Amino acid sequence: MTSPEYTYPEGGAAFPHRSLVGIAGLAPHEIWFLLDEAEQWVQLNRNAQKHREVLSGLTIINAFFENSTRTLLSFEIAGKRLGADVVNMAVATSSVKKGETLIDTAMTLNAMRADAIVIRHASSGAVQLIADKVDCPVLNAGDGQHEHPTQALLDALTIRHAKRAFNGLRVTICGDILHSRVARSNILCLSSLGAEVRVCAPPALMPADIERMNVKVFHDFDAALQGTDVVMMLRLQLERMQGQFIPSPREYRHLYGLSLDRLAKAETDALVMHPGPMNRGIEIDSDVADLVGRSQITTQVEMGVALRMACLDVLTRRARKLEGWS
Amino acid sequence: MTSPEYTYPEGGAAFPHRSLVGIAGLAPHEIWFLLDEAEQWVQLNRNAQKHREVLSGLTIINAFFENSTRTLLSFEIAGKRLGADVVNMAVATSSVKKGETLIDTAMTLNAMRADAIVIRHASSGAVQLIADKVDCPVLNAGDGQHEHPTQALLDALTIRHAKRAFNGLRVTICGDILHSRVARSNILCLSSLGAEVRVCAPPALMPADIERMNVKVFHDFDAALQGTDVVMMLRLQLERMQGQFIPSPREYRHLYGLSLDRLAKAETDALVMHPGPMNRGIEIDSDVADLVGRSQITTQVEMGVALRMACLDVLTRRARKLEGWS
Amino acid sequence: MTSPEYTYPEGGAAFPHRSLVGIAGLAPHEIWFLLDEAEQWVQLNRNAQKHREVLSGLTIINAFFENSTRTLLSFEIAGKRLGADVVNMAVATSSVKKGETLIDTAMTLNAMRADAIVIRHASSGAVQLIADKVDCPVLNAGDGQHEHPTQALLDALTIRHAKRAFNGLRVTICGDILHSRVARSNILCLSSLGAEVRVCAPPALMPADIERMNVKVFHDFDAALQGTDVVMMLRLQLERMQGQFIPSPREYRHLYGLSLDRLAKAETDALVMHPGPMNRGIEIDSDVADLVGRSQITTQVEMGVALRMACLDVLTRRARKLEGWS
Repeated sequence: MTSPEYTYPEGGAAFPHRSLVGIAGLAPHEIWFLLDEAEQWVQLNRNAQKHREVLSGLTIINAFFENSTRTLLSFEIAGKRLGADVVNMAVATSSVKKGETLIDTAMTLNAMRADAIVIRHASSGAVQLIADKVDCPVLNAGDGQHEHPTQALLDALTIRHAKRAFNGLRVTICGDILHSRVARSNILCLSSLGAEVRVCAPPALMPADIERMNVKVFHDFDAALQGTDVVMMLRLQLERMQGQFIPSPREYRHLYGLSLDRLAKAETDALVMHPGPMNRGIEIDSDVADLVGRSQITTQVEMGVALRMACLDVLTRRARKLEGWS
Repeated sequence: MTSPEYTYPEGGAAFPHRSLVGIAGLAPHEIWFLLDEAEQWVQLNRNAQKHREVLSGLTIINAFFENSTRTLLSFEIAGKRLGADVVNMAVATSSVKKGETLIDTAMTLNAMRADAIVIRHASSGAVQLIADKVDCPVLNAGDGQHEHPTQALLDALTIRHAKRAFNGLRVTICGDILHSRVARSNILCLSSLGAEVRVCAPPALMPADIERMNVKVFHDFDAALQGTDVVMMLRLQLERMQGQFIPSPREYRHLYGLSLDRLAKAETDALVMHPGPMNRGIEIDSDVADLVGRSQITTQVEMGVALRMACLDVLTRRARKLEGWS
Repeated sequence: MTSPEYTYPEGGAAFPHRSLVGIAGLAPHEIWFLLDEAEQWVQLNRNAQKHREVLSGLTIINAFFENSTRTLLSFEIAGKRLGADVVNMAVATSSVKKGETLIDTAMTLNAMRADAIVIRHASSGAVQLIADKVDCPVLNAGDGQHEHPTQALLDALTIRHAKRAFNGLRVTICGDILHSRVARSNILCLSSLGAEVRVCAPPALMPADIERMNVKVFHDFDAALQGTDVVMMLRLQLERMQGQFIPSPREYRHLYGLSLDRLAKAETDALVMHPGPMNRGIEIDSDVADLVGRSQITTQVEMGVALRMACLDVLTRRARKLEGWS
């Protein structure tokens, strides 16, 4: 399913970057290339026989300094389905706890001859720091409040499956825009692909410099939804909200929760998305989350595995080509 | 080693259930079929070369919401030996902790296109709840006080190896019958196979409705042991016993612990079984646990891997057949 | 890279031991043999395609009763690169917490038909205890204050790569000699290979019976460094030092930390080593740790994976040969 919107540069498609640290810095056709590459894995994963030996021989290390069950599972499944030797570095037991520096941990993983390192870290910029030091491709699985590029790419893939094109598409992202790397990566990705991105949040959860991004800013969710083709809800991270001047969960739901009534203000075929895990009854009502034909929430999970397979494949292609076997 | 006791229904053996949630609902010949299927894996596992590509291409997710080292290891080894891509979802770091509902977690695993999901959960009925929602086979690795079917099946396989037949066999299960899913699944399995099942427990640890099950009820362990062919001890879960009106560990051992003296009251070739981990010196004495030729405790562990390989193979057979490769 | 120093016994090289519990008990040519075997894996690991099916069909269990991210990762990668089915037993969730004895846990792993068990344990002697009970090779990944043989072997491999020979080589090990299994295994290994081993520690961190070992004892680090070819720093395990009469971290650095100035007292081409994780600024200064051409710290990590591949291969060779496939 290649969209007619994009014409690859002369000489064909390519992905010239060694690592995937963020959406920032990617050209639209490079994003498009990753989405195109993911399609074959979407198809493969629908079979029982869904293993390929594309990455056979490679070692992939998932180094998660911050807990994340679903993203870790998604990357682990992606690597194993492609035939790589996959190992997880559990943060809870890591040397980091013994006072080792992040760079030393990274140099250790590098010395074990990893062929790709997937990193999640609570600090913005930690992934770039590591990518600058190691010899292999690094994939950002979320760093602080910076970026979560594979989430944005899987969201784009999900939207492309349902809507085919991005030009003129109106996407509203609602929730804690201030702290959300998901929001940040999605804004960059969707704008780059030609969509109109609207962001909606309580004033306390909107970045001060949001005007610098290519978005329309709303504080009234009902107004934001007018004409919206895709509603992307963010998780309310209650654990982070201590002592901040924001609405209570009850007020939050009233003002910024997605109910059926509120969804009716968007386009009649508007998609509903959420990166998970959901707080049902807070930022999204159950009848919206489960709305058949509209809710894309489980599709996002499915696209996530395929998209991560594509990223692992594309980023390790150069190393494999150098040895003449891919 | 197929027993002469069972004649498979016309048309041959089969296992028509999509999932394995409990022993309840299985016909005797279906239990027998799983035991028969396990034999090939018992043999294979005794070689150094013990890997087969039977499940190659499939993704198996072990989702353990309750800690269990040995059961998880057993399922993980079973899946890997059969060539599947196996991933574990660690409860300690799971989204469940972020307030996600069980169903949402299950739908996420499903969307990642698992071909089988193995679940352990502290709530009775949680596994059935998930099995009703997902597209792939679900295997119950223990849910609350409900069932632990693979434990009962591996126990039956162990007994069959030593005794060949179940008809007329007297099996005494002793311990905390009230809270034990192991007891419950074993009662169902062994009765179904034709054994006489005796249960023995202090009154406070015996279910009020035990009479409804097909068992003989004892509170005096010595009386229960008369004529017994198999003594199956349950683990005393001290951590659960707080504030209950039950004997102290010392009294418990005196009344319900299996000592050499007490074992002498059973048949002279009676088997000793325990699902592990043991409290040596409480429910079972060390000289009984280690009694050569009588104790089946390590054999149970061995049979466990083989039996789980059989379950994974049988339950995924339909999906593989649909694609014409198994 | 076989050194001319060693002539293998007539009939060729061999490794007659079933397990690798310590360096004690190994003949010099047996150590040499493991180093020689590791060379092929050093080379292989430098390719993208670094997977071999040498151990295909085998099950390796990493049973870590004590946390250790890097050693576990190293063993896990080693086993997977050689094609084995590798499973980790996480201590945090293990039955050990339910009061099971160490021997019962070991017998369980054995009954699951492990082909090799890698064990790390906080108690000296725990690994030998298990090795005596199970049917398969056991590899010691560190037991209490006893031994850490693969660390000593990877250190020897690292030194051999840089210095080629051990005869007459002066190696200074500095730090907490008293509690360090790394020091103990290195003393045994390097002495056995013909090096002169010097140990340097504050009096409170020097074993009382150190004179019985084949080492030169120093309390003055500057004196120890005179003429030294290799400086091996130990990690200051601050978490263990509570209430002991030892210098503060600041004093420790002053007396026993490796600074550039101090390194200048050793030979001009002296190697710098550290088993990791490092306390930069305490036992080793950053400019020493990162000194290009001299610091071997990341090389040690690289050699670790190769050396562990060699150990897993060599120790399982007999079982594979019995079945005629290796």
